[in-house]
Formats: sequence, structure tokens, C-alpha cells
Amino acid sequence: MTSAPNSLLADLAGELGASGVLVGADINARSHADSTCIAACAPRAVLRPRSTAEVAAVLRRCHAAGQPLVVQGGLTGLAGGATPRPGELALSLERLSGVEAVDPDAATMQVRAGTPLNVVHEAAAAHALQFALDLGARGSCTIGGNIATNAGGNRVIRYGMTRELVLGLEVVLADGTVVTSLNTMLKNNAGYDLKQLFIGTEGTLGVITRAVLRLHPLPRERLTALVAVESFDALVNVLREARATLAGQLSSFEAMWSEYFELALARVHTGAAPFTARHALYALLEVEAFEPGAEATRLEALLARLIEAGLVADAVVARSLEESARLWRLRESVGELLAELRPLTAFDISLPIARMAAYLEVVGARARTLFGDRPLYIFGHLGDGNLHLVVTLRAAGDAHAVDEVVYGALAGFGSVSAEHGIGVLKRDWLGLSRGAAEIALMRTLKSALDPRGILNPGRVL
Amino acid sequence: MTSAPNSLLADLAGELGASGVLVGADINARSHADSTCIAACAPRAVLRPRSTAEVAAVLRRCHAAGQPLVVQGGLTGLAGGATPRPGELALSLERLSGVEAVDPDAATMQVRAGTPLNVVHEAAAAHALQFALDLGARGSCTIGGNIATNAGGNRVIRYGMTRELVLGLEVVLADGTVVTSLNTMLKNNAGYDLKQLFIGTEGTLGVITRAVLRLHPLPRERLTALVAVESFDALVNVLREARATLAGQLSSFEAMWSEYFELALARVHTGAAPFTARHALYALLEVEAFEPGAEATRLEALLARLIEAGLVADAVVARSLEESARLWRLRESVGELLAELRPLTAFDISLPIARMAAYLEVVGARARTLFGDRPLYIFGHLGDGNLHLVVTLRAAGDAHAVDEVVYGALAGFGSVSAEHGIGVLKRDWLGLSRGAAEIALMRTLKSALDPRGILNPGRVL
Repeated sequence: MTSAPNSLLADLAGELGASGVLVGADINARSHADSTCIAACAPRAVLRPRSTAEVAAVLRRCHAAGQPLVVQGGLTGLAGGATPRPGELALSLERLSGVEAVDPDAATMQVRAGTPLNVVHEAAAAHALQFALDLGARGSCTIGGNIATNAGGNRVIRYGMTRELVLGLEVVLADGTVVTSLNTMLKNNAGYDLKQLFIGTEGTLGVITRAVLRLHPLPRERLTALVAVESFDALVNVLREARATLAGQLSSFEAMWSEYFELALARVHTGAAPFTARHALYALLEVEAFEPGAEATRLEALLARLIEAGLVADAVVARSLEESARLWRLRESVGELLAELRPLTAFDISLPIARMAAYLEVVGARARTLFGDRPLYIFGHLGDGNLHLVVTLRAAGDAHAVDEVVYGALAGFGSVSAEHGIGVLKRDWLGLSRGAAEIALMRTLKSALDPRGILNPGRVL
Repeated sequence: MTSAPNSLLADLAGELGASGVLVGADINARSHADSTCIAACAPRAVLRPRSTAEVAAVLRRCHAAGQPLVVQGGLTGLAGGATPRPGELALSLERLSGVEAVDPDAATMQVRAGTPLNVVHEAAAAHALQFALDLGARGSCTIGGNIATNAGGNRVIRYGMTRELVLGLEVVLADGTVVTSLNTMLKNNAGYDLKQLFIGTEGTLGVITRAVLRLHPLPRERLTALVAVESFDALVNVLREARATLAGQLSSFEAMWSEYFELALARVHTGAAPFTARHALYALLEVEAFEPGAEATRLEALLARLIEAGLVADAVVARSLEESARLWRLRESVGELLAELRPLTAFDISLPIARMAAYLEVVGARARTLFGDRPLYIFGHLGDGNLHLVVTLRAAGDAHAVDEVVYGALAGFGSVSAEHGIGVLKRDWLGLSRGAAEIALMRTLKSALDPRGILNPGRVL
């Protein structure tokens, strides 16, 4: 790894202006890392280009100098991918921000990479449209980071992951070449679909500077229901029935196991508890309604039928936006809750629903043997086969032993990363989810696109 | 280009057995080309591997010998990509066929690449599931070809293109390396999503041997309606209203301009004409119903409202499966109709709906100037921004002049291929839809994955 000589920083300041290259005291107050427990070091400098041309100039010069960079969006990733490593410059997209155009007829939006997700939401809503990606960090994450990590979130069951919501990209390659591929069409089979190279590759193959997003109609209202069940089997049956009955309108199905639910209820819930009794598991359902009344009737009939059939122990449907927000807060306050539980280690795994019950039994038993009665907090996007597990630690150093339990039991049928990516935190476990030939092909791509290895080195691979 | 010496064919026969290498009289009776007007030549031999290991053996030997291959599925592509060029061997996946597993809980299916699409449909339906890709060639196209070309078809408006329906792939690279990436999970961000390299790259980067497909619930019934309108504006409004009201359940919105509709009505329709009067444009709508009654009521109310508002001139809703099939036949008999119109040239373009009316006016005017009153047949997947245009020619040699009219007017905002790919037929026009940096990056990928250029050389690039 080459260090950044002062001459490179001077050249970069020449390209970006003085405010475009922060060093020393100017960067001490900044956050340099996401909220994982990875030790953060300050980068040698923070580069803040204002345009694609400036990003290209930065990469051209760093490529020539063999200077490694870490690309930073909103620093809300949870895999350590944006955390600087020694000797790196940080390339922040914070000044390459803003919505450039909305085409309401085509239901598309062109946006700069550093734009926060909630700004994208607001710009879409102004045209009675929605950008369907949604997640708790919406106020601080950036669309560029969302795309680079192929973010999932709360509505994957209805709209897919970020990959399915991106039509075109503008990207700067490691050597400074600008690849403008700002497709606006739903269908375009004219040659290779190059954007796929950059979605979900965590900034290792190029720097995303602009995107064309696919928008969807904004529903008239979002109906929220919380259901309580007494077994995992019942929960799976509720999911099946909800999908069959609500079909295309079911936009979230968020599961919460009782340990997590009780914690959230105790710490962040306001007002009366939704249920009088305790239950084994809970699910938060969101249904998008495009016509007044019809979906609400359908949802209430479904819940009544499931209670009648003994599958659902209890259920509430939010009667107001405020009540809906209170229910969602139980699921979305994870960040806050986790801050209180440190040190901890958090997982984002994917596995077939049919294997979840057996998997959780194995992990629970091993965890009890190894770590006694420290609770395992479990929640996640059940409809997508995506669970989040949180384990509190005695000390940060215990994390590896917990990793071995959680990942070890997944080998051969699950993924060590459903929606957060590999970053540096899960790099050692990549081989559990991907074969040698797959990893070799990833390296072939990395060498072809970034032969000097300057972009996010050591992330993913 | 190296020719295939007899020793290579002998080695391949050693790998595949005598029935695995067809030459001479054994291949004369076979079709070698898709139904485009590209001159077909017989390949030196047709290779018919029965397993992934045999595909790997073929590629290893051809890679070593520098022997070019053309990969063949069902020969239903319409861009000439599977048509052999002089000196090539044909690699047919016809014996690597069959459904390997269906997981009804996870709604996934593992299938061999040579399996016909309708076999996939039937295997899914046996579990009350559907594989949502559907197109007229369903009885002869193969899933491997569908994936390699990222096929579109009739339900893109609801389920997306093939890319969105594939979870995992097994692929053999040009040098014979087998990359097994048979992911079964909806969410898997563990490293680069390698399958994206092979979906829609038309066999130029690897040979697909197996796939894991994403299935969806099979609707209880499919409702079909045919509506007639008097202007393109009205058609766009009907689409907008149908999407808003039917939301997630609208699975097709197929537009037909009057010249095409009248031709289909005269040549393939049986029974009474759907409408007594002639109209300017028609749309075939399909709505998936998961509950008895509800969607039918919704659809009929929508149509009544649109007629009341003067947007729809007339409408029929199919009352039986037979009536539905009769309406679909008007749209799906394109192949038959085209056979009668040869010589012709057919287009598969993509452009924003907001620009379609102006575009068609320009193309129509130029076509009339150049080609007199030969009719322009227009139909397509309006909801996806995808139009098919068919122009009859005086002679096959006229095609280039027609290409210039149709593609020339698209430059800067449309795509020369929405769903059929580039193949060889549209290669000269790729630069109208993609920039120099994009094409250079495609070449970088091609060189990295197929350095000797043996896989489908001259296709796409």
C-alpha cells in the first residue's frame, strides 16, 4: 500500500479546491465509521468532490499514484465497509447530492449519489409516486450507499431489493473513466446490463455518481397490523395466508421473537401495550391500499379468519397514522435498542423459511452452552427469509466465538449476509456462503476493473 | 478463427460419446437458425452434452484449441444470436433438460438449461405455483435461452423480466471452469451477484447449465379483457387508470394498433368479432385473481367507469377460458402472421411512453416517404415502454434502409432492443443506445471472461 504523499494531496486540492480536501483538525470532529464495533482510524484526508468530473479527477490521480481509497456515503452500513483502514483516503459523496429530475409519466427519477434516502422519498411523493426502498436509516443513508450495498429494508416482499429499483447508473471506474449508463427504460436488452456490476459490489468495482431510479405509485394509505402467534409454524401459516389473500398489496411482513418484542415494548413503546398477554412471536404487517376501503376490509376479514382458525392469538390494526407509527417504532428502534446492549454482535442472515425453526433451535442450544442465559434477540423480514440475530457479549473479543455458532450452523444452505453486504466484518465467512470458483470469479472481475486495487481494498474479498 | 480439426472432433466424441457429436447427414435435417432472415450455415458439428461435466469438457477442449462455438437453446431468439457462423461448432443444450427439484415452501425450482419453458410452467403449476415468464414460444424456447437473453414476454408489467425471476445459476466459463452459484434465497448479499454476468449477455460470457428459478403463487384465475380506444392518449390514460386501480394484479397490458389488429382479426380469429365497429387502438388486459369474485368486480367497475368517462370506446371481458384464449390468440399469433408477410423486418424497441406518439409520427412519415403505403404493423407491451414494429419489404435487401428510419429516430432516448437482445442483427446499431465507454466496459468483461473469444463470437459486440 502506497502512502499519500503531500504532492498527491496538493494535486487533489488543485482539482477539488481547498474545501474539497479536508485534513487534520477539519476531520477530527467527523464520524469515520459505521456503527459496527470495528476500530476506526481517521483517513489521511477526506475528499469531497462536487461533480462527476471531480470524482473522475480524484480516481485518475489516485490510480496513477496507487493510492487506496474508501468510498463513503451516509456511514449507516453495518459491515464496516466504509470504515477507513490505515493509509486510505476517504472519498465522500456528501457534496454530490440532490434530485436532478423526476419524470412522473415514466415514473423515474435521476438523482446524485450523495442524496439522502428521505430526500428521494419526498421528491417522489411530490408527484404521487414512491421510491419503494425504505429502511430505518432513511434520514442519514445515501442512495449511492443503498445501491452499492444493494440494500433491502422493509418492503422487499413487495418491491424487491435496491437492485430491482435501479434503472441506470453513472459510475466512475478506478482509472477515472466515466461510464454513463443512465438508462431510463424498464426494458433495455441492448448489450450487457452494466449497472449490475456496481449494484451490491460495495464500491469495489467503481464509484457510483448518479442513478436513475424506478418509482411506483404512492398508495393512498398504508395499513398496519400487529399480530401475535404462539409458534413459528403459526407464523409461517399467517405469512402464507397473508400472501395468498393480500397478494400484490402486502408490502411488509416483519417478524419479532418475544425477547426482542418485550425489550422494544419496555424501552421505546409509548401508550398502552398493544396486547394484554405475552405471546411467543409477533409480526408487523403493512398493506398498501390504492382504493379507499377495499384493502382495509380485506385485511380485517383475513385477521378475523386467522383468529377464528386459531392461527393468530391476537391482532391489532392501527386506526391512525400515529398508531401505525407507534407500532412501526417497535420494529424500527433497533439502532437505539442496540446502543444500550453493547458490546454485542449482530447478524443479518438468510435461509429458507422451511429450515428456520430447526436452525434457531440448533443455534439457541449452542449459544446456551457457550454463553449461558444471555438472550438472543431475533427479528427480521420473514417473507424474504432474512433474520437478524443480536447477541450481547461479555467483551468485544467474544464476537468470533458467537460468529462460529451463528455462521457455522448455516454452512451449506444459508447466507452470511442477506442485505448488509460483506464489508470487512463478514469477509472471513464469505467462503461459507460462496464456493471457491465463485470467489475466484469475483477476483477476476476485481482485477479486470480495478487492476491496481485502489477502490475499497480488503472489502468483500 | 481456427477451424475444427478432425482430432478435436474425435476428442469431443470421446468426451460426449458418438451420439453427442453430430456431423454431416445427421445435422442436415436439423434447423440451424432462428426465424430471422439471417443466412444460416450448418455448423461443423452439433455437440449435445448430457451433463455439466460434459459441457465443461467441451469448453476446456475448445478453449485449448481456440475453436469458436455458438450456444443453442430452442432457436426462438429473433436477433440471430444462435445462428452458426462459418467455422463454428454448435453447442446444443437439448439433452441437458428436465426439472430437478421444486421447493413449494420456498417457491423455488431447480432446472436444467435445456428445459422448455412450458415444462417449467407445468412443473410449477403442479404445486399451485407459477413461473411468471411467459411468451408465445413457450413450447419451444428453453429456460437457458430465456435467461441468456433476459427474455421479457407478457407479464413484465407485474413480475419483471427474466432477470428478476432467477435466483441462482450454474455456469461453465469459456475455459471449462464450472461456477456453481445455485443460490435459492431471495436475499443474498454475500459477495458479488455473479449470475448478473450471465443473464442477458447472450452466451458471450459463459454457458448456463442449471438455474434456480423464483416461483410465484398461481392465481385462481386470469381475467382477460379487450378494450378499444380512439387515440394513443386515451390508451395511455387507460393504462394509468388500470395500474392505479388494479395495482399489483394487472399482469399484462398489450397494445395493438389497428393495422395489426385488423390483420390478426382477419387471419387468425375464430368466431364473432369482439367489436362491431373499427377503432384506432386496442389493448389486451390480463388481471390475476387470487380470490373468487373480487378482481372480476374491480375490473368490470373500472371498464364501466372508463367507458362512462369516454376514454374507452368499447370493451369485452372474456367469460370463459376459451374466450380468453381466442382474445390472446389475436396478440400471440404474431409468428404465424409474420410468416405470411415475408420479406419483412421486425423491431423490438423501447422508449418512454411520453415520447411514443411523437416517435411513431416521425417514423410513419419517413416510412411513407421512403416506402409508400406499405403498412407498419405495431403492437407491444405498452406498460413496459416496449413496442414491436413490423415493416414488409419489397426485398430482403431493403432492411437496412428501414433500420435507419426506425433506429435513427430513436437515437438519444430509446433502445434498439427491449427484450430480444442484440445478437448479430442489431450489433451495428448498439452504438445508438450505448456510449463508447459502455461498449468499452463490455469488451473489458468479454476479455476477462473469454480471453480467446470462443463463446458466441461476434454476437452483441
